[in-house]
Amino acid sequence: MRKILIVGLSILCCQLSFSQINNAQEDSLNLRKLYDMSLLNGKSYQWLEHLSNDIGGRLSGSLNAQRAVDYTKKELETLGLDKVWLQPVMVPKWVRGAKEFAYIETAPGSTRNINITALGGSVSTPEGGAKAQVIEVQGIEDLARYGEEQIKGKIVFYNRPMRADLISTFEAYGGCVDQRYSGAAEAAKYGAKGVLVRSMNLRLDDFPHTGTMSYGELRPSQRIPAAAISTNDAEYLSGLLKIEKKAEVYFKLNSEQLPDVQSYNVIGEITGSQFPNEYIVVGGHLDSWDVGDGSHDDGAGVVQSMEVLRLFKESGIKPKRSIRVVLFMNEENGLRGGNKYAEVAKEKNENHIFALESDSGGFTPRGFSFEARQDQFDQIVAWKPLFKPYLIHYFEMNGSGADIGPLKNGEIVLAGLRPDSQRYFDHHHSENDTFDQVNKRELELGAATMASLIYLVDKYGISKNSGVSKL
Amino acid sequence: MRKILIVGLSILCCQLSFSQINNAQEDSLNLRKLYDMSLLNGKSYQWLEHLSNDIGGRLSGSLNAQRAVDYTKKELETLGLDKVWLQPVMVPKWVRGAKEFAYIETAPGSTRNINITALGGSVSTPEGGAKAQVIEVQGIEDLARYGEEQIKGKIVFYNRPMRADLISTFEAYGGCVDQRYSGAAEAAKYGAKGVLVRSMNLRLDDFPHTGTMSYGELRPSQRIPAAAISTNDAEYLSGLLKIEKKAEVYFKLNSEQLPDVQSYNVIGEITGSQFPNEYIVVGGHLDSWDVGDGSHDDGAGVVQSMEVLRLFKESGIKPKRSIRVVLFMNEENGLRGGNKYAEVAKEKNENHIFALESDSGGFTPRGFSFEARQDQFDQIVAWKPLFKPYLIHYFEMNGSGADIGPLKNGEIVLAGLRPDSQRYFDHHHSENDTFDQVNKRELELGAATMASLIYLVDKYGISKNSGVSKL
Repeated sequence: MRKILIVGLSILCCQLSFSQINNAQEDSLNLRKLYDMSLLNGKSYQWLEHLSNDIGGRLSGSLNAQRAVDYTKKELETLGLDKVWLQPVMVPKWVRGAKEFAYIETAPGSTRNINITALGGSVSTPEGGAKAQVIEVQGIEDLARYGEEQIKGKIVFYNRPMRADLISTFEAYGGCVDQRYSGAAEAAKYGAKGVLVRSMNLRLDDFPHTGTMSYGELRPSQRIPAAAISTNDAEYLSGLLKIEKKAEVYFKLNSEQLPDVQSYNVIGEITGSQFPNEYIVVGGHLDSWDVGDGSHDDGAGVVQSMEVLRLFKESGIKPKRSIRVVLFMNEENGLRGGNKYAEVAKEKNENHIFALESDSGGFTPRGFSFEARQDQFDQIVAWKPLFKPYLIHYFEMNGSGADIGPLKNGEIVLAGLRPDSQRYFDHHHSENDTFDQVNKRELELGAATMASLIYLVDKYGISKNSGVSKL
Repeated sequence: MRKILIVGLSILCCQLSFSQINNAQEDSLNLRKLYDMSLLNGKSYQWLEHLSNDIGGRLSGSLNAQRAVDYTKKELETLGLDKVWLQPVMVPKWVRGAKEFAYIETAPGSTRNINITALGGSVSTPEGGAKAQVIEVQGIEDLARYGEEQIKGKIVFYNRPMRADLISTFEAYGGCVDQRYSGAAEAAKYGAKGVLVRSMNLRLDDFPHTGTMSYGELRPSQRIPAAAISTNDAEYLSGLLKIEKKAEVYFKLNSEQLPDVQSYNVIGEITGSQFPNEYIVVGGHLDSWDVGDGSHDDGAGVVQSMEVLRLFKESGIKPKRSIRVVLFMNEENGLRGGNKYAEVAKEKNENHIFALESDSGGFTPRGFSFEARQDQFDQIVAWKPLFKPYLIHYFEMNGSGADIGPLKNGEIVLAGLRPDSQRYFDHHHSENDTFDQVNKRELELGAATMASLIYLVDKYGISKNSGVSKL
């Protein structure tokens, strides 16, 4: 409020200098130019069409992931950037194997198939599958209540749904995903035979949603298979268990963890004209899950980030600082690409001042969230009026992105594009994350919004550590 | 800015009274309650499912329109409102007849089918269809340039696309829709044989989009048939005409204007406890085009408006003023319902202080636009902070809704819900406006946002004419 007051007083007292007025006009015109170019002659949608329809799902270590590396490198090389290169990184290679199969059996021969998908990192079931009675729980904390006596030999069915009353679906996801990530490791400690987890999806439908999970410190012999079950089937199973407590579930997973393989982050750079040693990163992650084609997660972020650099080149705006697009490998099940990029940046003592990630879907952009010092955040929020014509209104301190997280050092500002989140988890990590679910204009608005923020950060820099409270 | 300054100073000087603080807390809690109830136990989606899937497209005067009247009246009667009634209104009855058919012919036997749909109100082609060479124009203003010599006997093809650089797709629509509404009437004056209009759609796809058109003062004998062509086929035809100027188009429409028929607005009311003679209206339109099922246009607005009254009843919030849900008939091709409601309100001297329409699709709500005096607008904008947790940020003086327009009298405040507009014209007036394209949460967020504004208007009223500049 103090800030608004000061701005208000400044305007009332006509204290804006001519250079401030000129800057505001130039910025306003340049943002308009970036939006126009993205909406009228953008390339993001065309790139996404290729990544999604011609390549498809890009699981780390897969042939498709390598094809995506090759394709995006080749496309970046057409943009007239100063440098394009591959940054080697070893990635885990988990493979799904043949499609999963599962059914509920209430009596011999009386079965109903259910839709499941192995969680990323899960071991397979035994050769003949796993079959057992089911115990439904509302979360990990229920395990201690039931104890080994009631859990041993059973399939633990985690069924706490995402909260529909939360406006941010990411917040609802955050309140549930422990079931998926740690559910198997915890249930194994009580002797469970396997785990089924209600899909992280607010909608009732038939798509199971995969995602990464961890066995924590469990030895290989202790690990149990874990799969996601569609929300419709979770509702069905839960209803059935109320009247038929002894119903059994059979499921068969064919997944396997193979040795790590070589992969790459794809990087392109426009070298800064005045401060080439100050780096600004914009990126998304090139890998995806294998069940859909990864259009929203995170094909959208990849092509939007590429588009940011293309817009700079096409518009003739010459950045003062070095702007890098980084297409990170292995966000989904390892974060190896993000870690590697930060590791190399640190080794080379590169001064990264700002990093922006787009990894929340290709929906209508609403704004950004930040990890920054208060003085840095204040500096950025002062640009908010420039975004009003584009209906960009959300500027909050509320996290950034997984791949850029490892760059955090108390000085760099991290940011995440925040698109409308309502539809995201309808598609996230499921067969249903496909190109036809991305709207061209929404994708392009996102790219222009990212380019606009990068333009402002490049032009004005980021305020240096002022001794004000750190993160 | 002055306003922000005053608010800022007020807070700084701790001048907020206890009653103001209590009101703000109560309002904040009540908005939360309305959102929770809509998201957790809403009925809007279930109602829309019936309207869309069980009834379907609801063209004025059709059996389906009558079924929608009966269904919504019956549902409103279950809500415990004080009154539910039908308001009779005569409506035009235009029928499409058998599905349209069209092709391009470059040589005898060398044809390509194209996707068209008769514009609402168009006459049919002659029994055997219409076939002629095509003249492409970028708008009505081109007709004078080509003149009768080049137009007579031809099919005029209006092909000015919606502007992709505009952020509001409604603004882009406004810049094109004259081709659809008046294109036939104007082309007929130059002797054109018929009219094809590029669909009002920003996306390239195969769906033709219908919509209302007018022959203005033309006598029946002068009227020529008019159809919309899909954007893909418009692009194809335009490209073809560059290399094959003599290509002909054949099209066949089977539409007919029948005599007016009896229909109804559906109205429900919660009578105000303190000011029963002050009326607040919330509504959408019950009719739709016939090509899709009218889920976004305007099934969404209908069920959201019904939900507003349900939320009041369920939450136990007893309005001081009388709140009416009005489901208007015949917005699409006549506005008879909107005109009738205003006419009766005027006859009865009912004091309407506020009307809110939802007729921009069931997408994530972004805010509202208003038609109001400046003092009234200032009063409403002061409520904006209450909406921040729900990411509702758009409060602008920028129109309201077609059906409530006839209520305008210089005193009533008119408002329109403004959802995200990016996807709207992908669906608008096409086969593609279907239930599966509506996201449950987005619909429910819209209903809660509307209920919240109605709650505040009811609680605080609307400032009376202060002598400040009128609309």
